[in-house]
Amino acid sequence: MSEQVNLFKKAAGEKAVEYIKDGMIIGLGSGSTVYWTLKKLGELVEEGLNVKGIPSSLRTEGWAKEFKIPLTDFSEVQTLDIAIDGADEIDPDFNLTKGGGGSLVREKMVDAHSKKLIIVADESKMVSQLGEFPLPVEVLPFGWEVTAKKIEALGAKPVLREREDSIFISNNGNYILDCHFHTIADPKKLHHELKQMLGVVETGLFIDMTDTIIIAGQNEVKVIDHPNK
Amino acid sequence: MSEQVNLFKKAAGEKAVEYIKDGMIIGLGSGSTVYWTLKKLGELVEEGLNVKGIPSSLRTEGWAKEFKIPLTDFSEVQTLDIAIDGADEIDPDFNLTKGGGGSLVREKMVDAHSKKLIIVADESKMVSQLGEFPLPVEVLPFGWEVTAKKIEALGAKPVLREREDSIFISNNGNYILDCHFHTIADPKKLHHELKQMLGVVETGLFIDMTDTIIIAGQNEVKVIDHPNK
Repeated sequence: MSEQVNLFKKAAGEKAVEYIKDGMIIGLGSGSTVYWTLKKLGELVEEGLNVKGIPSSLRTEGWAKEFKIPLTDFSEVQTLDIAIDGADEIDPDFNLTKGGGGSLVREKMVDAHSKKLIIVADESKMVSQLGEFPLPVEVLPFGWEVTAKKIEALGAKPVLREREDSIFISNNGNYILDCHFHTIADPKKLHHELKQMLGVVETGLFIDMTDTIIIAGQNEVKVIDHPNK
Repeated sequence: MSEQVNLFKKAAGEKAVEYIKDGMIIGLGSGSTVYWTLKKLGELVEEGLNVKGIPSSLRTEGWAKEFKIPLTDFSEVQTLDIAIDGADEIDPDFNLTKGGGGSLVREKMVDAHSKKLIIVADESKMVSQLGEFPLPVEVLPFGWEVTAKKIEALGAKPVLREREDSIFISNNGNYILDCHFHTIADPKKLHHELKQMLGVVETGLFIDMTDTIIIAGQNEVKVIDHPNK
């Protein structure tokens, strides 16, 4: 990654902070661009901004603590004002693939319960159709072999995620199947079919959730609002 | 529970063993009637019957080992020949509520992947409509409070299951919400709605799965086959 791209990622991440107002409950997402959001937010908190965040991964929780952003959780609040998150793929309808980092359920829980969802990412994540990035599907360890067979029957090649020669375990104690679909013609239908499946806990398809995309390009930062939100 | 009811539960549990043939892979379910199935099956194994079982709970696994029933798992087989399981409620359409014991996902994984499912239970489990027994719904610990709110919006009173003053943890490391619906008019629709919900791992509704019910009554053992299976 070039020095210049990093500069615009930083600018895009910081741009998202402009949407944050005093008193807000904020979903703190994941990804390298969100890092810059959190860093900037920490500066505003130090200057007196009064907000609370719910982190969507253990890594983000670490960053939030580093930047002294006050935290809360779902036992205290059920609705968030805004969530700022990254994505692995973004299609023209603002649908996302997420979960490459292995925290897809927490990210979805945070994003889905926010009044406004802002996605910050570099322009390499914008695609004409989802599916080139393998879709992460969180599954129960018990009987995962059968679950994988059923996903395969939908046209994917599911690969059990590993890390350092052992099976990768999600924040929730589950396995992740990285499912190579190559093209996903109907993301909403696919999510529905997968989520309905016995053994599937959640999918990395984030449908009809995104309000605004902030994209770090080669030479600029672009803000794209969903036309119907 | 009277001595007499126990006698017929034993008879019903043993009756199920008649469906087991040499070479079969058997789903070993849960419940006090299934105990008698396993005990009888152990005797046949000792006499030379060659079968393998997949237990659907840690308790059942303990019984199977006690009765020296050879075990296997989903890494070796993807389809079972027969499953014999209990139920908390059985409706006239052979739909079930299960999971009072906290092992609903494993039970469903085993039952759903069997060519034939036999339910053994005493007649108190037969109801005209599901819902009096609280429906167990397995949910992710992260954000469970929000998940409970959404289930409440469907008309239930969800109660977080506890055991000895701490939160009950399922075999899969999740929480169980016992959801008091009182009447479930459309079990298939309710299962679909709940399973689709973010945060829900699985429900205790077993729809369109049961082939045969073996009921221990006050004076007899009744076998009822599903009319369309």
